[in-house]
Amino acid sequence: MNMRPLILVSNDDGYSFPGIKVLIEVAREFGDVLVVAPQLHQSAKASSITITDPLRAIKQHEEPGLTVYTVNGTPADCAKLGLGVLAGDRKVDLVLSGINHGHNMGNSVIYSGTIGVVIEGLMAGIKSVAFSYNDYHFDCDFSPCVPYIRRIIDMTLKNPLPKDVCLNVNFPKTDDQFNGIKVTTTSLGVWTNTWDHRTDPRGIDYYWMLGEYEEQNPDDSNTDMYWSRRGYVTVTPIHIDQTDFEAITPLAKLLE
Amino acid sequence: MNMRPLILVSNDDGYSFPGIKVLIEVAREFGDVLVVAPQLHQSAKASSITITDPLRAIKQHEEPGLTVYTVNGTPADCAKLGLGVLAGDRKVDLVLSGINHGHNMGNSVIYSGTIGVVIEGLMAGIKSVAFSYNDYHFDCDFSPCVPYIRRIIDMTLKNPLPKDVCLNVNFPKTDDQFNGIKVTTTSLGVWTNTWDHRTDPRGIDYYWMLGEYEEQNPDDSNTDMYWSRRGYVTVTPIHIDQTDFEAITPLAKLLE
Repeated sequence: MNMRPLILVSNDDGYSFPGIKVLIEVAREFGDVLVVAPQLHQSAKASSITITDPLRAIKQHEEPGLTVYTVNGTPADCAKLGLGVLAGDRKVDLVLSGINHGHNMGNSVIYSGTIGVVIEGLMAGIKSVAFSYNDYHFDCDFSPCVPYIRRIIDMTLKNPLPKDVCLNVNFPKTDDQFNGIKVTTTSLGVWTNTWDHRTDPRGIDYYWMLGEYEEQNPDDSNTDMYWSRRGYVTVTPIHIDQTDFEAITPLAKLLE
Repeated sequence: MNMRPLILVSNDDGYSFPGIKVLIEVAREFGDVLVVAPQLHQSAKASSITITDPLRAIKQHEEPGLTVYTVNGTPADCAKLGLGVLAGDRKVDLVLSGINHGHNMGNSVIYSGTIGVVIEGLMAGIKSVAFSYNDYHFDCDFSPCVPYIRRIIDMTLKNPLPKDVCLNVNFPKTDDQFNGIKVTTTSLGVWTNTWDHRTDPRGIDYYWMLGEYEEQNPDDSNTDMYWSRRGYVTVTPIHIDQTDFEAITPLAKLLE
């Protein structure tokens, strides 16, 4: 019987992106790796799942300790299919997502497919960690992230995590090295959308969605963005329940 | 100058579904209505947005007090395009989503495109309410919901809501009438996925995702599902920040 941990790796940029290749290599130091990644770019898909179309899993590669599938779906689809079907009889010990090309701090957590993967892991009761690097370039250099990814995977496998959370790890952009790790809250902010309004060659209007992030609490020294700006790797514990408990009593009064 | 409130209405089932038609009719009693709804069924799209394809808005209908667009995108795309482009210079006073064919309680909130709409409204600083009826049939009878929708819209327009929340309203299935309104928390649970594994006419495997909801705290008398089972309309305040604040100190210890 295989006693190495089984690690499921996915992402939202798709299997063709370099970030996931780096994460796979680090994960292989710790266990057998099952990659189930989107065939196509799936950024900003949040926890979207595919219920009105069939999913297909194509085996791209197999060697001892590594199996790679791509799926015609979202990051959450990949996680579900990996955990429910492709892992077969083996129990998955750890779910990893990323390394995302671009950060997932602040309200980006709402839209992130990278986070969608670890939300699935968390709901399945499996330790889950998302990694994102604040550089959107296809060919960016992830090597400064590697020792930190190694350390966080090691910590996660060896210890019980706090109950009902997954981890959202963000690396600031650096050409050098990071200043350390900070455990943070999610900063508040909004994406202010602007729209590039065009007319197609057939005379029909269309819109490209653009967005600029506007931070609302830049001086709050607890947040991911605050410490990221100061060169720290940030680790934010994320849970699922979005109930606002403080609003319950005043809202009940309004509805009396 | 038009002094009636401007109400943006969207959903995730798509404009062709009856639920949104009922919501539009009730909304028109309170203000001018701008409908921006998905062209196609967009269930389980969460807060997914479309950043790699262009969006198109097609005007389907216009009469005094009502303008209807359909969009080739997700519920969140519709809300963003409605608020950012299609409302023009008018400020939107209220965002409504639904009426969804099927409930959005418990962890369904994670996947719901109906909720994706009101999350957008909330982030834009606009009062936002999602309505879902626990009947998945296309031709279900929404009439028992109407007086409650009327009452909740009236309350929402007349009062300041608690800070930074949108409302998730769920109607239990009934052939008669509801027992009243309860303000609730989101119940805990998971979707246990099963997979219908098939082979296509060309010999290639594919999978349909199925799911069954497993409630984890059925006896918790604070939750949406608890009160829904007892015939009450539930109203749950939802916020955006998914940080688990209690996990920060223990996690920081693990990463020291």
